[in-house]
Amino acid sequence: MDEIELIHRLTTSLPSNDQVVVGPGDDCAVLDFRLPDRWLLFKADAVVQGIHFDVQTPAEKIGHKALARVLSDVAAMAGTPTAALVTLALPPSFDPLFVDAIYRGMNELARAHAVAIVGGDTSTSPERILISVALVGWVPKDKVLLRSGARLGDAIFVTGELGGSIGGKHFQFDPRLEEARWLAQRFSVHSMIDLSDGLASDLQHILKASAVGAELLSTAIPISRAARLAVRNGPTHKNPLVAALTDGEDFELLFTVASRDSVRLLDAWKKEFPALRLSCIGKITSGKGITIKDKDGVRPFTAHGYVHFT
Amino acid sequence: MDEIELIHRLTTSLPSNDQVVVGPGDDCAVLDFRLPDRWLLFKADAVVQGIHFDVQTPAEKIGHKALARVLSDVAAMAGTPTAALVTLALPPSFDPLFVDAIYRGMNELARAHAVAIVGGDTSTSPERILISVALVGWVPKDKVLLRSGARLGDAIFVTGELGGSIGGKHFQFDPRLEEARWLAQRFSVHSMIDLSDGLASDLQHILKASAVGAELLSTAIPISRAARLAVRNGPTHKNPLVAALTDGEDFELLFTVASRDSVRLLDAWKKEFPALRLSCIGKITSGKGITIKDKDGVRPFTAHGYVHFT
Repeated sequence: MDEIELIHRLTTSLPSNDQVVVGPGDDCAVLDFRLPDRWLLFKADAVVQGIHFDVQTPAEKIGHKALARVLSDVAAMAGTPTAALVTLALPPSFDPLFVDAIYRGMNELARAHAVAIVGGDTSTSPERILISVALVGWVPKDKVLLRSGARLGDAIFVTGELGGSIGGKHFQFDPRLEEARWLAQRFSVHSMIDLSDGLASDLQHILKASAVGAELLSTAIPISRAARLAVRNGPTHKNPLVAALTDGEDFELLFTVASRDSVRLLDAWKKEFPALRLSCIGKITSGKGITIKDKDGVRPFTAHGYVHFT
Repeated sequence: MDEIELIHRLTTSLPSNDQVVVGPGDDCAVLDFRLPDRWLLFKADAVVQGIHFDVQTPAEKIGHKALARVLSDVAAMAGTPTAALVTLALPPSFDPLFVDAIYRGMNELARAHAVAIVGGDTSTSPERILISVALVGWVPKDKVLLRSGARLGDAIFVTGELGGSIGGKHFQFDPRLEEARWLAQRFSVHSMIDLSDGLASDLQHILKASAVGAELLSTAIPISRAARLAVRNGPTHKNPLVAALTDGEDFELLFTVASRDSVRLLDAWKKEFPALRLSCIGKITSGKGITIKDKDGVRPFTAHGYVHFT
């Protein structure tokens, strides 16, 4: 049983109540706290030494990544983060300077996005460091973006360049909070997710939640320099297109938009965010799963991206 | 550097914003989400295998404890819990039935308090299981109970019987949510905390936050049967009074009330909660720290309760 099967099994019979707008299965939970125009967003996530970082990782980057991951989930709902709680599980022999540096990385990112850190509890974890970050935020009720809203004919967009994040980007990415809110306010964005498991896996989440399919254009997929360079380092590396499709932890935004908005969106984006690439990579279809179109024709894409639980 | 020093060091310079009403240092963070009459409560906490439970612990009890601890923190603010997120870090070889049972214990307690579980993510932790639970809830603005409100002359009360929780209670306690709300609605409760580190340690938190002292009456401290039995099992065990003062994880409510309310409170409590003992154990003084009064006189109490981080 892998992570996905386990999560499915566990989340089918969880307790709910009348304040739950969206429960498990999207980037954040959405809660109704009786605010006239806003939903509450709620998310928690953990990074573990040896999996999400290792002993050589500079502590500031660990702290940055731990917080950035949950901020990226808030971005994926077009929300605004408010406050975070940090649970730090440490070996008894921890180095206080190392912990200080973890917090420095976290605090700097928090300040950049006006997020308060309202608690910092510690616990013991003898063998390895684990950092769990919980976050609350909010989103205007009429602007929340879910995975389940993709519609037939939508254009599929992705920010940035994909693949090879393990080379360094996964420690220093900036969550796309401003970009996501800008998109939700100005365009008919129908669905959105942040890329954590890999383009193919995360697109599958949108397709499943929306009961639609997708056709991607292979030449339109933005391949990062890191993914292109990795292929030179030996025959065991993926080809760059597969890396862009399946590598995890890009933390870019993947979203679908009414196709009539596509050209206007690309124009406006270039003016607003000239330093960040935006690519239209395909369209939502009535099929099932993902197909990829290249010069040889259209074929189904079956390989999965990175699955956390191994 | 122990847990308390570390937390102090980390929490002195955390980022804040104008939505933070109470940041680190109370049982929950208190946030202003622009609701006319309510604050938001926000808390996260973790339990770790080998520290808070062990390999022999029935999985349902682990799940119960993981959620009950954060519910107890919401109780300590006189709040109402709304929704929880669960982060489960598991060895790759986990037994799905074991995980199911953890959730059964958690779900049953959640349902009993109308709490939704809105996410259940997993991560890998090769050596030991770790469960982190994040919780949001709310409290009426004029009824929130902090650690910092104790006043000179207040009577000090504690629910239940103390000490020896390690014998079993720490796996099956019911958080005092209903009792705390009842207290806040009907009496001039000035400060409250839940007992997790031990009566002496947790009372010190109130005293420090409120800049007051306390005098306890040794004969008034309610000693549990478990604490009395433990002393019979050999000379290494604490005497029962010290156990009641210093054993951790009682998860009862400790609070201070205007002394004029004391008699009325004890009478009303007996009618409302006849099965749960309520004890007036002393008073708030202008001194520093805790003194204990017994037949031989008054002496300072210096030993600390259980400190998590060892």
